[in-house]
Amino acid sequence: MSAASFHEMWTQLRPVGRDGDSGGYHRHAWTGADADCRDWFRAQAADRGMTCETDRNGNQWAHLGDPAAGDAVAIGSHLDSVPGGGAFDGPLGVVSSFAAIDELRSRGAKFSRPVSVANFSDEEGARFGLACVGSRLAAGALTPDAARALRDADGTTLATAMERAGQDPEAIGPDPERLARIGAFVELHIEQGRALDLTGDAVGVASAIWPHGRWRFDFHGEANHAGTTRLADRRDPMLAYAATVLAARREAAAAGALATFGKVAVEPNGVNAIPSLVRGWLDSRAADQETLDSLVAAVEHAAREGAALEGTRVDVVRESFTPEVAFGAGLRDTLVELLGGSAPVLPTGAGHDAGILSGTLPTAMLFVRNPTGVSHSPAENAAEDDCTAGVTALVDVLEGLACA
Amino acid sequence: MSAASFHEMWTQLRPVGRDGDSGGYHRHAWTGADADCRDWFRAQAADRGMTCETDRNGNQWAHLGDPAAGDAVAIGSHLDSVPGGGAFDGPLGVVSSFAAIDELRSRGAKFSRPVSVANFSDEEGARFGLACVGSRLAAGALTPDAARALRDADGTTLATAMERAGQDPEAIGPDPERLARIGAFVELHIEQGRALDLTGDAVGVASAIWPHGRWRFDFHGEANHAGTTRLADRRDPMLAYAATVLAARREAAAAGALATFGKVAVEPNGVNAIPSLVRGWLDSRAADQETLDSLVAAVEHAAREGAALEGTRVDVVRESFTPEVAFGAGLRDTLVELLGGSAPVLPTGAGHDAGILSGTLPTAMLFVRNPTGVSHSPAENAAEDDCTAGVTALVDVLEGLACA
Repeated sequence: MSAASFHEMWTQLRPVGRDGDSGGYHRHAWTGADADCRDWFRAQAADRGMTCETDRNGNQWAHLGDPAAGDAVAIGSHLDSVPGGGAFDGPLGVVSSFAAIDELRSRGAKFSRPVSVANFSDEEGARFGLACVGSRLAAGALTPDAARALRDADGTTLATAMERAGQDPEAIGPDPERLARIGAFVELHIEQGRALDLTGDAVGVASAIWPHGRWRFDFHGEANHAGTTRLADRRDPMLAYAATVLAARREAAAAGALATFGKVAVEPNGVNAIPSLVRGWLDSRAADQETLDSLVAAVEHAAREGAALEGTRVDVVRESFTPEVAFGAGLRDTLVELLGGSAPVLPTGAGHDAGILSGTLPTAMLFVRNPTGVSHSPAENAAEDDCTAGVTALVDVLEGLACA
Repeated sequence: MSAASFHEMWTQLRPVGRDGDSGGYHRHAWTGADADCRDWFRAQAADRGMTCETDRNGNQWAHLGDPAAGDAVAIGSHLDSVPGGGAFDGPLGVVSSFAAIDELRSRGAKFSRPVSVANFSDEEGARFGLACVGSRLAAGALTPDAARALRDADGTTLATAMERAGQDPEAIGPDPERLARIGAFVELHIEQGRALDLTGDAVGVASAIWPHGRWRFDFHGEANHAGTTRLADRRDPMLAYAATVLAARREAAAAGALATFGKVAVEPNGVNAIPSLVRGWLDSRAADQETLDSLVAAVEHAAREGAALEGTRVDVVRESFTPEVAFGAGLRDTLVELLGGSAPVLPTGAGHDAGILSGTLPTAMLFVRNPTGVSHSPAENAAEDDCTAGVTALVDVLEGLACA
């Protein structure tokens, strides 16, 4: 394949939204760094003579051939990042898509179907708290009103942020005609785990996305002076929170699933103040719905027991939930076949635009090996050879699906 | 006593810096609410024909008689608050001081020593993180450079904040001449605990302030994706933090002392991110130094064990420390005698300006019963009768110390 075009694109994107000290990326939806990514995408399309458009939900598309002809093959991913994220989560899929097209063209391939490269808007949900906003809106899985009302940490609504970035927030909503013209969407993504490292494969095919959700645990206690209040007179919600953190890990290990408290907010959050409120968010995922339900129920039970012991109270709210996505067997098996028949087929705990769209059109995913499994961190990495193997896999898939 | 003057002052101060929803107070040093409190103090002095001055460190003084004559009796406390604090912590001492003077004057008392009412600057340390800044500077227990460099959450230095409030930050520093003119300082304060409620007394006398300090625990882990990282591959610092919170409570109970984690900061603090850093602050206090040392050592030990189990690391930094303050027996016993000989003598875990100044001049404290012990909270309360008993006690003390 044409390693030169991949390398050049990677080098161009590298400094965009990068924190000089940590090397982590801050490419949040509708910020200046996001705009820079979008400019880069438009320039890539122009360099290749591809038409470029931004749809009503802010998703970017670079077209080879006329997408209105229908039955297009879409490839791509997203360019936004979590706070302090890595370079690969998202951009690897977009850069590999352009590189795969370059390679096929350099071989003189004839395309029998339109091909579109996508950059989905606000996949990470880092700024407004909800992931995959661009694909959810397009698929009708999120109402325009609910989207517009999302707020970032500064209180700015998504509507205002879009408007400031030159995107009309009144136009957002379902986009069935656009999606109906796509015959298949294949998203290449760095693996966010070590399954391929453990099997020893550079590239794999997704089987399913685990059901997953976010639950907010509000532990209510009584604010008081930390330096004078007798232990017997305290109603300290931090203790129930701590017991719940440990219970979540214990229950997840027992269930062979995942449960994490990674975000906390404390009131009044003073060194010498017993908190009145400790708010912790549980992220939990499991291979099937039943396991996830019983895991979350066990964590809730532990939270209520811990809170009662200390004379405090806990309220639990499910903030978001995504049921299991099983990628369609047809496209999935085609991918395995196009890759030579031996590529491993594996599930993931992470949500993706390909998962959101799987209910509307045939979607599939390719994963590229992540030797440490580290993701959502500046330390996220993939070997150059594995990135090349990813592009080669995408070339094989695109050739099989879209070339005469 | 003159309940009318107490009630009138209390009513005037009530709305200043008060949050309408919670009823909590936000009177932080060098803010608008602080300026309003200072204006109120000046007006009280003027109403009583007392001279009013603000010293080089921002502490306010209202003088009856000429303080330059020396051997003055100082009374008072502070008017600033913690975030969301109660109405009594601080203001009760200042209001009671003016009310006690009113009562003695209404009885036609003749003062044989100068009397000064103090409003100490930035007692709570709510904005700049260090408590008793005004008295520490005056006593030479805090260097001017260190004070000027203190920063609030917005990055504003104490120097800038003072300047904006019209106080010269270049003038701050030790004030030995002023302190040398004071023969005794008696601070009346609401009790921040339930000792008087348990003994059934309205007023008590302080014996000592427990040694106390703040320790920052930095738990370092590895940021990673909460939805895809196998439990076995995680280095999640939240687990060691949670184990340490529970250990602190357990060790404090065993030692008959206090240990609290009331403040936490998490990075990146994302719902779907395993944290790279969980920073928790321990506030710990005990009746004696040895108990405190072994308690904190036990919590550190638990933190290191918890961190090692999970492949994470903890750094512990002592951010501040105040050794035990034993109020001088002379003035303390005089107070007990002036109150009729039966007032309970009790220690406290909370720091006070009277504690800071105890190394420089004779100081003592009166506590007023707090029926729930709740402090640093909008729910902080004292019964009207107990406030009256507090003023009466201060009248007795002032009459005994300062009247012919």
